[in-house]
Amino acid sequence: MDLAEGVLAGDRLALARTLSQVENGTAEGKSALSLLFPHTGRAHLVGVTGASGTGKSSLVNQLARYYRMPAKGASSPDMQASKPAQVESPCRVAIVAVDPTSPFTGGAILGDRIRMRDLAGDPGVFIRSMATRGSLGGIASATAAVVQVLDAAGYELILIETVGAGQSEVNIARLAHTTIVVEAPGLGDDIQAIKAGILEIADVLVVNKADLPGVENTERALRSSLNLAHPLPHRFMHHGKLDLIPGQSATSDVAEPLWVPPILRTVALDGTGIPKLVEAIADHRAHLEATGGWEQRERWRLQSELDLLLQNTLVEDFRSRLPAGAYEQVVEEMMGRRISPFQAVEKLVDSAG
Amino acid sequence: MDLAEGVLAGDRLALARTLSQVENGTAEGKSALSLLFPHTGRAHLVGVTGASGTGKSSLVNQLARYYRMPAKGASSPDMQASKPAQVESPCRVAIVAVDPTSPFTGGAILGDRIRMRDLAGDPGVFIRSMATRGSLGGIASATAAVVQVLDAAGYELILIETVGAGQSEVNIARLAHTTIVVEAPGLGDDIQAIKAGILEIADVLVVNKADLPGVENTERALRSSLNLAHPLPHRFMHHGKLDLIPGQSATSDVAEPLWVPPILRTVALDGTGIPKLVEAIADHRAHLEATGGWEQRERWRLQSELDLLLQNTLVEDFRSRLPAGAYEQVVEEMMGRRISPFQAVEKLVDSAG
Repeated sequence: MDLAEGVLAGDRLALARTLSQVENGTAEGKSALSLLFPHTGRAHLVGVTGASGTGKSSLVNQLARYYRMPAKGASSPDMQASKPAQVESPCRVAIVAVDPTSPFTGGAILGDRIRMRDLAGDPGVFIRSMATRGSLGGIASATAAVVQVLDAAGYELILIETVGAGQSEVNIARLAHTTIVVEAPGLGDDIQAIKAGILEIADVLVVNKADLPGVENTERALRSSLNLAHPLPHRFMHHGKLDLIPGQSATSDVAEPLWVPPILRTVALDGTGIPKLVEAIADHRAHLEATGGWEQRERWRLQSELDLLLQNTLVEDFRSRLPAGAYEQVVEEMMGRRISPFQAVEKLVDSAG
Repeated sequence: MDLAEGVLAGDRLALARTLSQVENGTAEGKSALSLLFPHTGRAHLVGVTGASGTGKSSLVNQLARYYRMPAKGASSPDMQASKPAQVESPCRVAIVAVDPTSPFTGGAILGDRIRMRDLAGDPGVFIRSMATRGSLGGIASATAAVVQVLDAAGYELILIETVGAGQSEVNIARLAHTTIVVEAPGLGDDIQAIKAGILEIADVLVVNKADLPGVENTERALRSSLNLAHPLPHRFMHHGKLDLIPGQSATSDVAEPLWVPPILRTVALDGTGIPKLVEAIADHRAHLEATGGWEQRERWRLQSELDLLLQNTLVEDFRSRLPAGAYEQVVEEMMGRRISPFQAVEKLVDSAG
């Protein structure tokens, strides 16, 4: 049985192997991806992002546990509330933890260990931590591919967790149907929430650690930032895009019907607020499906993945056509200030023929 | 007089115009860059990065004021200490403020206004805020180009300020000879310092707001993180690289002689610790020059700029060769799950000929 067949048959070992091949960009991984692609498009992809210290990972764990619960029974009084009707129960959940902030230490590993203790042994949960690739294009491409494999493997809900509040998150958020932005009280200047720009990719806002002092201030700051943010129908028009092909829908004027991001309070440590959050996620999915937003996001997602792959392919192809030593030579000429970087590019393009 | 001549002659208006052309990637900007490139390579490029709330911008302002001071006289008792002998005084200073965290709101503008009040009217200071480009490659390329123009214009010290702690910073840090990482007490979990990975690009560590409680804890956390970090000689081997051409020095085994990043305390608001910081910056430069590290970083910097420019050029060239409608067609086929993203790339490459 080949890798793709194993994945489709629900073999966890085949799944883990496929993910490794796909992450490493091997020929076997690429071939598995092409075989699996027709089986994708069913999962609800939920991005969870926010600064370090917000308790984002605990929140993701609690979400996964909640989705895995039968309709009754839980670890906290609040969690015992029955699940919203829209949530099939229990559904299969995958967690993809991406840490683009550390190209060096592979910070995701630690989180993985902690997580495994919590959710280990549940065959309906699959957890994958992704170490950072060399380039941003790399990590976004690799995440897209890993998510596709998990989608094809039948995970109905895929939680994509990212750290930080930069361009990396925006790129990874483009993969998700629903993006949750997590804040917490007392993490420094409230005004920074405005500056971060991350609010404008949020479909659901969560103030975690809501048992800490200052929760009202954080919520108030979020609410006023939200009001200042660009109107939602335009959000994708500014979505950090490769812009490979001009005039594509990502920069077009197709307005997405209005969704006002709710602001919810949670305490991930004891599960407070998780049912309401699950409800908001289900509501957002229903909203997307009712308004055509689901298909629109699918299109943007696939386009953005295509753009990244194309870029990588073009670079690799160019590299293979370059005569030996040509690159080193133009670098030397640049070092001697005899040619400028633009002139170096021209020389290389000429010599690649 | 054309733009480049104006820049070389010290015309501020010509400089501002050139920077705009360069940022917008116009033909005029590219031509000016090529004319100016032979005049670059003299400036000391100092990156200053750190999370929001660390008081990074105030620190950059104080640094600029200090470099501009005559040998005596200052705004605080501490600043009255004479400048270190290595620092020519007063030297011309440029500040480039880059905010890659906000692809939406252009957060850099506000900081620019505040800065102008502080340093306005000094002809030896030039300040440029950069709004974020669509892609990370874009902002890094644009920053590299802006820095080159300022270098050619005779600014001896260029402070490149970036927000956040992600891949963007790593990419922009690659531009600098010396990278300063700023922390402050009480910005959340100290353990996050380890995870952020940003420490490993630091040449100088600063605990700003050192008059706040918790400064000892922050310093201790930094020190232990620093000890855990990868040995410095290997830092560039993991430097988030495009890896366009394999076997280049950025991934080779050339070890940089050891530099142990000092940890300094500052209070940017009243100037405390600024002279020591300026001394550390001068020490680092002297270290780089004595060990060949300066030339090595110049090489990496130019290579990384070349890689980014090449990538942009390849994508633009490909776009121009694509028949009308070809892109839209493969996106439709992907939406219908008839072809995978890899197959879509193959089809496009075939149709571009």
